[in-house]
Amino acid sequence: MPASAPFTGVIPILATPFHDDESPDHASLDRLIRFFGELGVDGFTVLGVLGESNRLTDAERTALIKTAVAAAGGRPVIVGTSHTGTAATIALTREAAQLGAAAVMVAPSKQPVPNDAVVFEYYRRVIEASPVPVVVQDHPLSTEVHMPAPLLLRLANEFPRVACIKAEATPSPNKIAALKAGLVRKEVSVLTGLGALYGFFDLERGSDGFNTGFAFPEVLQAMVARMRAGDAEGARRVFTRYLPLMVFEQQPGVAIRKEILRRRGLLASNRVRHPAGSIDAATAEQLHRLLEATFPGQDLTRPVRIEA
Amino acid sequence: MPASAPFTGVIPILATPFHDDESPDHASLDRLIRFFGELGVDGFTVLGVLGESNRLTDAERTALIKTAVAAAGGRPVIVGTSHTGTAATIALTREAAQLGAAAVMVAPSKQPVPNDAVVFEYYRRVIEASPVPVVVQDHPLSTEVHMPAPLLLRLANEFPRVACIKAEATPSPNKIAALKAGLVRKEVSVLTGLGALYGFFDLERGSDGFNTGFAFPEVLQAMVARMRAGDAEGARRVFTRYLPLMVFEQQPGVAIRKEILRRRGLLASNRVRHPAGSIDAATAEQLHRLLEATFPGQDLTRPVRIEA
Amino acid sequence: MPASAPFTGVIPILATPFHDDESPDHASLDRLIRFFGELGVDGFTVLGVLGESNRLTDAERTALIKTAVAAAGGRPVIVGTSHTGTAATIALTREAAQLGAAAVMVAPSKQPVPNDAVVFEYYRRVIEASPVPVVVQDHPLSTEVHMPAPLLLRLANEFPRVACIKAEATPSPNKIAALKAGLVRKEVSVLTGLGALYGFFDLERGSDGFNTGFAFPEVLQAMVARMRAGDAEGARRVFTRYLPLMVFEQQPGVAIRKEILRRRGLLASNRVRHPAGSIDAATAEQLHRLLEATFPGQDLTRPVRIEA
Amino acid sequence: MPASAPFTGVIPILATPFHDDESPDHASLDRLIRFFGELGVDGFTVLGVLGESNRLTDAERTALIKTAVAAAGGRPVIVGTSHTGTAATIALTREAAQLGAAAVMVAPSKQPVPNDAVVFEYYRRVIEASPVPVVVQDHPLSTEVHMPAPLLLRLANEFPRVACIKAEATPSPNKIAALKAGLVRKEVSVLTGLGALYGFFDLERGSDGFNTGFAFPEVLQAMVARMRAGDAEGARRVFTRYLPLMVFEQQPGVAIRKEILRRRGLLASNRVRHPAGSIDAATAEQLHRLLEATFPGQDLTRPVRIEA
Repeated sequence: MPASAPFTGVIPILATPFHDDESPDHASLDRLIRFFGELGVDGFTVLGVLGESNRLTDAERTALIKTAVAAAGGRPVIVGTSHTGTAATIALTREAAQLGAAAVMVAPSKQPVPNDAVVFEYYRRVIEASPVPVVVQDHPLSTEVHMPAPLLLRLANEFPRVACIKAEATPSPNKIAALKAGLVRKEVSVLTGLGALYGFFDLERGSDGFNTGFAFPEVLQAMVARMRAGDAEGARRVFTRYLPLMVFEQQPGVAIRKEILRRRGLLASNRVRHPAGSIDAATAEQLHRLLEATFPGQDLTRPVRIEA
Repeated sequence: MPASAPFTGVIPILATPFHDDESPDHASLDRLIRFFGELGVDGFTVLGVLGESNRLTDAERTALIKTAVAAAGGRPVIVGTSHTGTAATIALTREAAQLGAAAVMVAPSKQPVPNDAVVFEYYRRVIEASPVPVVVQDHPLSTEVHMPAPLLLRLANEFPRVACIKAEATPSPNKIAALKAGLVRKEVSVLTGLGALYGFFDLERGSDGFNTGFAFPEVLQAMVARMRAGDAEGARRVFTRYLPLMVFEQQPGVAIRKEILRRRGLLASNRVRHPAGSIDAATAEQLHRLLEATFPGQDLTRPVRIEA
Repeated sequence: MPASAPFTGVIPILATPFHDDESPDHASLDRLIRFFGELGVDGFTVLGVLGESNRLTDAERTALIKTAVAAAGGRPVIVGTSHTGTAATIALTREAAQLGAAAVMVAPSKQPVPNDAVVFEYYRRVIEASPVPVVVQDHPLSTEVHMPAPLLLRLANEFPRVACIKAEATPSPNKIAALKAGLVRKEVSVLTGLGALYGFFDLERGSDGFNTGFAFPEVLQAMVARMRAGDAEGARRVFTRYLPLMVFEQQPGVAIRKEILRRRGLLASNRVRHPAGSIDAATAEQLHRLLEATFPGQDLTRPVRIEA
Repeated sequence: MPASAPFTGVIPILATPFHDDESPDHASLDRLIRFFGELGVDGFTVLGVLGESNRLTDAERTALIKTAVAAAGGRPVIVGTSHTGTAATIALTREAAQLGAAAVMVAPSKQPVPNDAVVFEYYRRVIEASPVPVVVQDHPLSTEVHMPAPLLLRLANEFPRVACIKAEATPSPNKIAALKAGLVRKEVSVLTGLGALYGFFDLERGSDGFNTGFAFPEVLQAMVARMRAGDAEGARRVFTRYLPLMVFEQQPGVAIRKEILRRRGLLASNRVRHPAGSIDAATAEQLHRLLEATFPGQDLTRPVRIEA
């Protein structure tokens, strides 16, 4: 896991903050990016699933990308540009690049009859039209598209503009190992998603780091640092120590993550856009106890100390 | 079936024409609308499933709405404004109204856990924010959302802005009968979709007409006229005569319809946007034979004579 | 379309008759088979989707196979033996063969991650263990498994025990043409299902006949006879004449078909096993009108005259 | 959480052991049950999802139930009897009761159109026909049926034969709390499944224990004991300590669990029936490291010491 590769380490997927009236909250997005930047993360991804990209208008997307790039202070910003139409994905990709995105993240969409050749052609068109590197997102839970490892490898090996595979198909440890083994272009990174639920197991099998929304990047950074230092058991201890929070946080929806980010002082509101829902009081109370047990006595609005 | 009600009769769902390079072809859209207008249709719906709305950027949508409203010459234009986010549906709805839409057509989106209350709230927000009447689209084949008749009736009966239900859940004859029986606001129309596959059976059970993409509105007009005249068996004969074409045309995708519209001289190209595909040569040849058998000796670029 | 091939022509898929208390009605199954046999059908398929095979215990299956084989009077009986487990499919297949089945019909089951290699291995194991020919059923609507034409062709071309492909993936005309073109073992037949909805279009593209549940095999026989005689336009006329009934009958579920079979004097009850439902009164009334219009003045308990 | 209630505490879901040739391995099932019995578990569930019930013939089921009841030595055996047909579910339920099952576990099956009334009627018929108590399984991940809490509560409150709800719909903590709050018949237990992934969080919100396949019931017993003793933070520590193993084990499929049971000396083979697959070598090696880290120096063929 070379520390110097462009898309390795810890690249948080960012929530899109909203005000209580569901309008985009750019001040919170700015604050979120600056805080994570001070933690030393390796980049940011905006407008992914956690970013509620499927609940935004194109105009809102444009404004959010501008805010993210401005706040990132030179750290790379990856922008999710997936769309159910190939031409529209290309249009969103070009716009993101023009606005300063360092890369785009692209997932395929479900077709009436699954067809690897159509998925390949979708990516070919987007990659060839993209002015910036492309992160291939493999997340069948949200896309309902299953991309076998050979298809992903063909994309990564044939197209120099593919920079990274975000590997979120379960069982992820096995798939990550298959991808790492099959990559000819070794500069392509493979990153872990899924809220880091399988984080240590993925690192063990070759993951180059994290590209996920877990609200404490400090934890993921500690795992990556130990792995890079050859201390796998140390990484396992960090994983074990914080896994209950990862498990709790990755329950369906983004409501819990937004509440954590609010408690960290980063989001003004935990609002999730309708038709999804914000956190309920009982879950918030349960989260509160979990955070107390996980970070006893710590101020969550500051970078947390990792103990393991 | 009162002929004078606002959303009854035959309201074609329009394809979105593209050039061979997949860019929107406004001249063809204009031609299509003017030709159907001269047939005397009761309105037009743009940006539905047949309109490939899920493959368009917001900017393309805006331009297409403008062209449609201008070409419609006063006939009502219904604009599909469904979006996976409620706030975005509202934004698209307001823009459509501002651009001259007579109504908007709205379908719900799939949630992780199906929930009628969430669907109701989605519609409530959109309906209350809409400056124009709303057509509720019930098309589980594309949405994967099943709306039971009581939910649809609650929407139609509680909200005066609901003008029409586009009933496309199979078995449609039964559902249409249940809707017609339960409507308190009798001015709400119930229209048949699904490419008119069950067209006569739906009319028999109370459908107020068609809101579908069958490429020969003349056939649907003939069926509606006979039903209104009390000649159900005449309507059945028309249905029988043209049913093979309806069956062939409603095969999955919009490729066959676009090819028919091209043969009618309305679309310059039969191009379907990627990742969907355009018609293949063998299917086009089979369609050609079917059109010859259905309209022997007729010029399809002119309004066709209906025989039954 | 050679008339002499083993699995060509018209092979009805049979409903499983139940008494009003939902217990299997063997007398009605016997009557159904004898009546269809007198029509001259080319075989029978029992325990398919229409046969409600997924609502039967193994013991009920055994008894129904015995009744079917005894009633068939030497005509081939194909038995559906699909099961979610491969070993269980093999067990059911061996039992069916032992009980006198001429062939078995086998469909794959949905896996967590679609995988053509797993589907191939499933078929390989079943085919190699089967004492009788195998009909490969391609019906993604019920299985949620999409088998591309190359996979089906590999099965048909590699395994001599594959006798037939029941082609029910839409668009079926195209897929049937692809299969016919790719078959090396020309003795493998390709049959049309889907309630004959695309019946003529499938014949046009090379289908060898019908393996479907349409309740008037006479109609399908008339289409096949005309095609074999080189009279495609005659087949098209038959198709057109009876298509409304095919469309009405293939609405979701098997309730309408069972009611037609009851009206034909073949089933004592139209009962469908729970959790599916039997026909409702309004649909039965609508069906009655349709049958009157389709077969004016004819006695449906006798073989019907085909007019076109 | 009363310790004396009939279906509370820790009731493992058992794998169905197979020989390497995929035939049922009764000796291993016997050994598995006796070992877990000596741990003091509160019962056993056989023929659930983990038991690969959907890959068994009815005859195999019968034999396995006999072995389980004989080995259980008086401890209650719950038998999964779900079937896609209601009458068949009843037949399997009656047989299980006759063979000595203490209860049956029943899940609904997916219908073409979701309908709570049909699910209720399915359960009503099964419950009224069942000679033994019924466990209602709410596991949408496998059934694709979403049962809202009010439906589950209606079943539990109206039918005295409902003894337990196996709550496996995510987010499970919230649903369990809603069920516990709404139960009028307080003797109905609510148990945690999902491989105990949310185990502590479910206990916190009112779960009465575990009905899941985690291969170390000792861990679950320790959590339940601490909760019953009022030591929630102790239960949390146990959960945290063993959560990596729970997470790893609940990856899709049952292969990992069978391998653990094999390493514990309980299963002669880790074979999973086709079309599912057995564990691969790399995953087995990763599991080996995880077990070493989780139970350092312990003999897994003996009851393990729980440390936290």
